[in-house]
Amino acid sequence: MEIEIATIGGYEEVGRQMTAVRAGDDVVIFDMGLNLSQVLIHDNVETERMHSLDLIDMGAIPDDRVMSDLEGDVKAIVPTHGHLDHIGAISKLAHRYDAPIVASPFTIELVKQQIEGEQKFGVENDLVKMEAGETMSIGDRNELEFVNVTHSIIDAINPVLHTPEGAIVYGLDKRMDHTPVIGDPIDMERFREIGREGNGVLCYIEDCTNASKKGRTPSEKVAREHLRDVLYSVEDYDGGIVATTFSSHIARVKSLVEFADDIGRQPVLLGRSMEKYSGTAERLDFIDFPSDLGMFGHRKSVDRTFKRIMNEGKENYLPIVTGHQGEPRAMLTRMARGETPYELDDGDKVVFSARVIPEPTNEGQRYQAEKLLGMQGARVYDDIHVSGHLNQEGHYEMLDALQPQHVIPAHQDMSGFSSYVNLCESEGYKMGRDLHVTRNGNLIQLVD
Amino acid sequence: MEIEIATIGGYEEVGRQMTAVRAGDDVVIFDMGLNLSQVLIHDNVETERMHSLDLIDMGAIPDDRVMSDLEGDVKAIVPTHGHLDHIGAISKLAHRYDAPIVASPFTIELVKQQIEGEQKFGVENDLVKMEAGETMSIGDRNELEFVNVTHSIIDAINPVLHTPEGAIVYGLDKRMDHTPVIGDPIDMERFREIGREGNGVLCYIEDCTNASKKGRTPSEKVAREHLRDVLYSVEDYDGGIVATTFSSHIARVKSLVEFADDIGRQPVLLGRSMEKYSGTAERLDFIDFPSDLGMFGHRKSVDRTFKRIMNEGKENYLPIVTGHQGEPRAMLTRMARGETPYELDDGDKVVFSARVIPEPTNEGQRYQAEKLLGMQGARVYDDIHVSGHLNQEGHYEMLDALQPQHVIPAHQDMSGFSSYVNLCESEGYKMGRDLHVTRNGNLIQLVD
Amino acid sequence: MEIEIATIGGYEEVGRQMTAVRAGDDVVIFDMGLNLSQVLIHDNVETERMHSLDLIDMGAIPDDRVMSDLEGDVKAIVPTHGHLDHIGAISKLAHRYDAPIVASPFTIELVKQQIEGEQKFGVENDLVKMEAGETMSIGDRNELEFVNVTHSIIDAINPVLHTPEGAIVYGLDKRMDHTPVIGDPIDMERFREIGREGNGVLCYIEDCTNASKKGRTPSEKVAREHLRDVLYSVEDYDGGIVATTFSSHIARVKSLVEFADDIGRQPVLLGRSMEKYSGTAERLDFIDFPSDLGMFGHRKSVDRTFKRIMNEGKENYLPIVTGHQGEPRAMLTRMARGETPYELDDGDKVVFSARVIPEPTNEGQRYQAEKLLGMQGARVYDDIHVSGHLNQEGHYEMLDALQPQHVIPAHQDMSGFSSYVNLCESEGYKMGRDLHVTRNGNLIQLVD
Amino acid sequence: MEIEIATIGGYEEVGRQMTAVRAGDDVVIFDMGLNLSQVLIHDNVETERMHSLDLIDMGAIPDDRVMSDLEGDVKAIVPTHGHLDHIGAISKLAHRYDAPIVASPFTIELVKQQIEGEQKFGVENDLVKMEAGETMSIGDRNELEFVNVTHSIIDAINPVLHTPEGAIVYGLDKRMDHTPVIGDPIDMERFREIGREGNGVLCYIEDCTNASKKGRTPSEKVAREHLRDVLYSVEDYDGGIVATTFSSHIARVKSLVEFADDIGRQPVLLGRSMEKYSGTAERLDFIDFPSDLGMFGHRKSVDRTFKRIMNEGKENYLPIVTGHQGEPRAMLTRMARGETPYELDDGDKVVFSARVIPEPTNEGQRYQAEKLLGMQGARVYDDIHVSGHLNQEGHYEMLDALQPQHVIPAHQDMSGFSSYVNLCESEGYKMGRDLHVTRNGNLIQLVD
Repeated sequence: MEIEIATIGGYEEVGRQMTAVRAGDDVVIFDMGLNLSQVLIHDNVETERMHSLDLIDMGAIPDDRVMSDLEGDVKAIVPTHGHLDHIGAISKLAHRYDAPIVASPFTIELVKQQIEGEQKFGVENDLVKMEAGETMSIGDRNELEFVNVTHSIIDAINPVLHTPEGAIVYGLDKRMDHTPVIGDPIDMERFREIGREGNGVLCYIEDCTNASKKGRTPSEKVAREHLRDVLYSVEDYDGGIVATTFSSHIARVKSLVEFADDIGRQPVLLGRSMEKYSGTAERLDFIDFPSDLGMFGHRKSVDRTFKRIMNEGKENYLPIVTGHQGEPRAMLTRMARGETPYELDDGDKVVFSARVIPEPTNEGQRYQAEKLLGMQGARVYDDIHVSGHLNQEGHYEMLDALQPQHVIPAHQDMSGFSSYVNLCESEGYKMGRDLHVTRNGNLIQLVD
Repeated sequence: MEIEIATIGGYEEVGRQMTAVRAGDDVVIFDMGLNLSQVLIHDNVETERMHSLDLIDMGAIPDDRVMSDLEGDVKAIVPTHGHLDHIGAISKLAHRYDAPIVASPFTIELVKQQIEGEQKFGVENDLVKMEAGETMSIGDRNELEFVNVTHSIIDAINPVLHTPEGAIVYGLDKRMDHTPVIGDPIDMERFREIGREGNGVLCYIEDCTNASKKGRTPSEKVAREHLRDVLYSVEDYDGGIVATTFSSHIARVKSLVEFADDIGRQPVLLGRSMEKYSGTAERLDFIDFPSDLGMFGHRKSVDRTFKRIMNEGKENYLPIVTGHQGEPRAMLTRMARGETPYELDDGDKVVFSARVIPEPTNEGQRYQAEKLLGMQGARVYDDIHVSGHLNQEGHYEMLDALQPQHVIPAHQDMSGFSSYVNLCESEGYKMGRDLHVTRNGNLIQLVD
Repeated sequence: MEIEIATIGGYEEVGRQMTAVRAGDDVVIFDMGLNLSQVLIHDNVETERMHSLDLIDMGAIPDDRVMSDLEGDVKAIVPTHGHLDHIGAISKLAHRYDAPIVASPFTIELVKQQIEGEQKFGVENDLVKMEAGETMSIGDRNELEFVNVTHSIIDAINPVLHTPEGAIVYGLDKRMDHTPVIGDPIDMERFREIGREGNGVLCYIEDCTNASKKGRTPSEKVAREHLRDVLYSVEDYDGGIVATTFSSHIARVKSLVEFADDIGRQPVLLGRSMEKYSGTAERLDFIDFPSDLGMFGHRKSVDRTFKRIMNEGKENYLPIVTGHQGEPRAMLTRMARGETPYELDDGDKVVFSARVIPEPTNEGQRYQAEKLLGMQGARVYDDIHVSGHLNQEGHYEMLDALQPQHVIPAHQDMSGFSSYVNLCESEGYKMGRDLHVTRNGNLIQLVD
Repeated sequence: MEIEIATIGGYEEVGRQMTAVRAGDDVVIFDMGLNLSQVLIHDNVETERMHSLDLIDMGAIPDDRVMSDLEGDVKAIVPTHGHLDHIGAISKLAHRYDAPIVASPFTIELVKQQIEGEQKFGVENDLVKMEAGETMSIGDRNELEFVNVTHSIIDAINPVLHTPEGAIVYGLDKRMDHTPVIGDPIDMERFREIGREGNGVLCYIEDCTNASKKGRTPSEKVAREHLRDVLYSVEDYDGGIVATTFSSHIARVKSLVEFADDIGRQPVLLGRSMEKYSGTAERLDFIDFPSDLGMFGHRKSVDRTFKRIMNEGKENYLPIVTGHQGEPRAMLTRMARGETPYELDDGDKVVFSARVIPEPTNEGQRYQAEKLLGMQGARVYDDIHVSGHLNQEGHYEMLDALQPQHVIPAHQDMSGFSSYVNLCESEGYKMGRDLHVTRNGNLIQLVD
């Protein structure tokens, strides 16, 4: 059976991930993501109303025109998890394919919400939920399996396409976490089985985000203990404490909510994304928040909540808000600019359970947000975080478990692939033979 | 009563700490430290045989000639903890003063060992042990108290000189740790009492090492959880694992020893400093290591141990060795150069439970050590560490607890004081009035 | 005669410089500047309409309330050169003092324009022009002298207040340039004379901007040769070339204009600041631009010029525009966003004859501007620049020339003073004795 | 005719450059270099006595075993210029090939000296001098041409192998310099001709060292003006001035010698490499130094010279010495350690006309050298330098001139190739088609 891989997006950047695998006549697409920074650099762009081709020209969504070179039928579109760089182009591209979107329940729900917000295209692909551990047939001879992985969002999986030639493992995005706070640990046992069974692994496509980082990405549990140490240390503070983190990072939100309670403060989630992700997670029973946990997204209800907090005493609340990167319109930035009813005072604490994404735009915005917070007397705790991506030791462990015949680095530009290439070569792979450094828009023929 | 403070060393650098307080006719000296980097930059310097004046000229030990301007008798020399930058000049300077050395038991033991190694001077000062919580009279009207603090070495205290004019609190070095793995949490309750009782605090001398760092220094417990995550993750590795950390950091060594046991490896401490500090801690009952824990300092016994490890299988051991900064003569660097019987193989793990001290010499040496390790196939886990010094929130908390009339930043150069000055001014202090930015060799008259 | 120095602004930051010297009953104010970054961090602030007190609260202009502690009459307000951080608060503060503004001709003209733009206060102080080398009496016993210096703006001087107790030399801002492209070299001979004559120099207030930088700030001639090398190398390019630099940096604009001509392109100055500073310089005969050099500030005339350039061929022009820091509303950023009629094509060159001011906000904006330029195919040459401030060797040379009794570091925060303090101590000064590290709002009594 | 390229060394690092081109039955080898840092990391390695295989194992010289896969006869070994990373393996590898070494006169001379120092192998290849602009036949159908280029060493060329299938241009190492201080400007005219004539350029192998750097590498003339500015500024200093630069950088040495004379000091070249390179350049008439210019390499004669300088007055001399990277055994480091008769005093100047090579080992050593210099009172001027390698605009210009069918990035690791790949793709090349990202030890078949 012919096996071919189209590396469509996310091979020259982090963002707009998209990869297609053809096994015989069947094609499966993994991820359809958005490169948000290519959108935000322009003023006043409303992606909801934009056409795919314009977004492709902007470098915002994958240029899927290479799909016409793949001879076969798309049988499934499979986003691995709910981050925008993996699902954000579905509403712009999926309608071109007569195929269902197959994803884990939490991811499907986020895809659904995205499609509902789309204003240019009608997207009518079936939405099919499949859990980690489950499989589905892809044509007559191939099978799609979801393996549970751990990442900075819940319900992340790595899809595996079992073909007669061996398995294709799509490894984006994950950390190797054995104590992930929410959900099951990464299913290394299943990866090891896949490496041994049948024809083994034909190809592994790997998330190289942290391939230059030594050692091991710490478990979410380490971030949790760090966060606990911070919040318990301000237990006696009788003024305002505010926290921010990635809205989609439900495990972190859970820790914040629990520690808020531990130190005698009522947590409340504020900001559109906060409401969206945590609300969805709760509705789908991924988490059991306290029944009185408030979540507010609309500006009016947020401001009403802030007024209540001011009336009842800031010392009784822990607002958990959007704005960890200093985004100009996020809640924390609004608070820093004095645009909300929440009044910051000297000595108030702002806890950033996040890292600044290292890019000058973010760094500039975050700097400004912190400076504005400081002008109001607030003081910052930062970097209470662990990455969601494998460091080098995780990469070694995955190669050891899967023993793939071919490896394709992804989720970086070429400079970012460099460390991973060195790593693979130290394990016996050879570039140009079984280690494929590629670019957006390429086809790699593995079996012909 | 006249109160005067001589800022003798460590006010233009980190290292060679020394401060004298005169209260009426009584003088107490806090710390007598060594600036090791000023020694190491020269080749082949043997400090044991050198004269004080030469070491002063090198900038290696405090220039205590300003002591002649202090009219009073030195009643005690009080090192706060056992790090070299606080005790390393005792064998060179203490004999000039007719006063006992008063310190916590672990510190006294380390001072004793240092004096025994001294080859130029005979040092015959009395060595007096005093525990945290205890007090002793200094002359007729003053009293010295030890308050328990938490740092990256055990048995650290902050000495307080109670005078009729108020307390002088010498705040070097500490982190605010409520879960310190070994020993008691920092005694914030006592600091708060001292702030309120009698005339309150006349003067606070603060450790500004991390004054530019936001938020809170994490507890040792956070480093422990991080370390646990790393070591548990290599439980199944059946080759060599080696760990290194600060030899004097007994809490960290303890975690390493325990986790080694948890993952089925026998820990063994190797290198002169490892044997010295851990041996001392065990002898003084600060820690109860497993009875069969080996500690070896002499090269011969180390190499014999390495041979035994090689014979019995590297997979059964976790050597905990010196060399976390890549020091050229430390054990890990010798291993990296292939100078020991321990053979590193592809995939062996080296765990640095330490940070590189950010100075180009260290960075160069550490880089070389890691490169040499890599040439042998070993792979590195780094930065599994938390600082031993207060970040900004700890500084705020200390000011809040003590409410000192005067503040003197220490343990940095002027650039390092800068953030602390801003911090103090935000709390109402004013430079030149009650906030004293000073240099080595100055006298500050607080009460005349 | 009593001599007292009030360090009002610019002693905790770069920006809002202001220093007052009292000699007996006479007071002279040096500089009244604006800290622009404290303004720009807020959205939609129009300083023209704001009250001084609000601007003081924002940290944007000097808090001159300490002036009420100075017993004497202000006889002159003396800005040293025309940069905003030295003149930008004149329209907000000068009217409170019954004293003329005394400055070099170019500076006076810029002050005048600023006052004309002021919409809140009526500023009616006399504007008095005085050239480098000239003097004026200040009260009966003191004399003000201007010494020619070299900086990144023309007509910069260092004012010297000659008092019976010795000279007070106000050393902001300068580079030691013997080949400054425009104007005379720095008048080191006069500084050396001042150091030797009469009572010598009582006090020297120094610009510490670059005090941590080794060696010597290169001459403007070095930047000129670098720029020549760049522009000559694109002589054969037949597409668009655009240059940007600091608008007030007339010497650099002159080089750009000349090299444009050398490579067969017509230079044209575009953007409000470009027109303002170069127009003023030409009107005052500081520079003799080609008679047909266009300068356009208003958006309409700029856009008309761009249209003409597009019609007549980009290859015939070198637009010299505002926007070297990526400021969102500057001309280059507008070009990068495609908001002007000038169309950038693949391979067009953009020459930044400027450095990014190292602050995250600037870095973010400049990054975005370059990214937008790149999206249009333009390619960037950057860092073709030399600083306008003394490096360490210049500081040594000034101390050597002036031999001041007292030294006061300025134009930095305390961290920035640190290197200069080390430097002064290596020359025999001692902090707290004759080397005064100070803060905004302090009084230093030199003679009582 | 079959055309094949073996990328042997320098495709995963900077250092140990080696590339072979097969055109039909004829093979030409370009460069045989040494990766010095792989040697220096080991203590006490004497390369002169080592076997090739050991040096290959250390990663110090190219692993030329891939040459056995190339079916053809080596007709010439062609080093492009005299830097060690291009000629340093000749004495270890050349004797395996029955072929002359063909190079420009200065390079040949350096190769000869290297062979003379070799103690393990007898190297008896013919040494053939060929000047820029000349050609020689390679077999019946190919021709080798040297094109003059500009680099940080004199007499650098780019070899071109003219084949019936088109030209192979080997582009290492160069800067595009039209005012190079010594020698002719880069021969862009010839490159443009080569791009147009016959079958054009089949393949271009490019020096990617600076491919991530924007704009244009400045001409040596810019460094010269910068250096002039520095040295003229210390004309009046009556103490010691010492300069250091790359010994092989004859143009820079020439500027130093001339400016020394201009400011009334006698230049003298000290250190083994200084004597070697400048002596060779003078002997071959590349430069006409003043007849009384001293050059001393042996420690005794150096020390004798230092004694003479001390006797006759440091103010009369400008020693130009080795040690710009702080190398532990270089002359400047010896001076800094007080190991030479030259006594440094307070205020003496040390001019580094070089940049620190950005690698932690160098940074550590240079830091230590500067610190030791500072302990003796000397003060440093640094970074008076321009790179010898093309920045991005030079790369664009080369592609434009040559219009190559294939491009191979070299002289970096993959991370370093990344920017060049982006650049080539913006010019229409496509990775995997005509843009070949490769590794050490690969074969690329261009024509079959």
